[in-house]
Amino acid sequence: MSARDDILEANARYAATFAHPELPREPRRRLAVVTCMDARIDPLAALGLELGDAHVLRNAGAIVTDDVLRSLALSHAVLGTREALVVGHTGCGLHGASNEELCAAVGVSAVDFLPFADLDESVREGVRRIRESPLLPDAFGASGYVYDVSTGRLRVVTI
Amino acid sequence: MSARDDILEANARYAATFAHPELPREPRRRLAVVTCMDARIDPLAALGLELGDAHVLRNAGAIVTDDVLRSLALSHAVLGTREALVVGHTGCGLHGASNEELCAAVGVSAVDFLPFADLDESVREGVRRIRESPLLPDAFGASGYVYDVSTGRLRVVTI
Repeated sequence: MSARDDILEANARYAATFAHPELPREPRRRLAVVTCMDARIDPLAALGLELGDAHVLRNAGAIVTDDVLRSLALSHAVLGTREALVVGHTGCGLHGASNEELCAAVGVSAVDFLPFADLDESVREGVRRIRESPLLPDAFGASGYVYDVSTGRLRVVTI
Repeated sequence: MSARDDILEANARYAATFAHPELPREPRRRLAVVTCMDARIDPLAALGLELGDAHVLRNAGAIVTDDVLRSLALSHAVLGTREALVVGHTGCGLHGASNEELCAAVGVSAVDFLPFADLDESVREGVRRIRESPLLPDAFGASGYVYDVSTGRLRVVTI
């Protein structure tokens, strides 16, 4: 039942016609996108980005965790990005969940899965964490959006 | 110099022809992909995946951090994925870097940016962390790969 064989075959087809052999390591548009792992989001297509344009960071919930801040610090200081877009989305599994029910589903206790009650506020909190992080300079930009998985449309939360 | 206006315009075009209004929240192929934020990687295209097929997790280095394990636990227990592919890549900024130089670049001390000396070993370590995590059952699969950003080709590290 593994998906691995299919994926290796599909990748061989991708590589056979690979059209981007010499992209620079530094994102061309000096941009980082922080969004959710959700399977219904294609960040490049939804934001009109091409391969090579932007760093893309994804975890459960588009939460600006310490791991995201570690990644953004490297994105900026080593690879020259100048701003981050935090993109939450409608229908997120963490939106409106309680940590107790998530712990019960996973079968553990005392793990914080970082659910949130208010989607816009979660995005704003992510933007705040970027703005206040000692790992990023004040000039590093941050803005927040909600992506609607049923329409493909991005709504501005905070700019 | 902000990229935001361009992105909102591009998103309006994307939404105008949006073709996926009713994708299920559960990834169709019951798959999660863990890879790097690197701008040269398009995980869906490179692995032959369609929108809705897989969760995609990305951070600096494709490192299986606690945040990645939190996300994978939710991916499995709440949204039904059954395996993860850990995909490192050639030319990663964390490969061969020292933490001292990364701290100096960011302008901080005593932050672990998680550089690694050996690419294949970093991928194997990520697979091990998934296999050994108390947040995931033994039956949850994990395999490791290296993606070559100059050829588009995926190489198996550990299956």
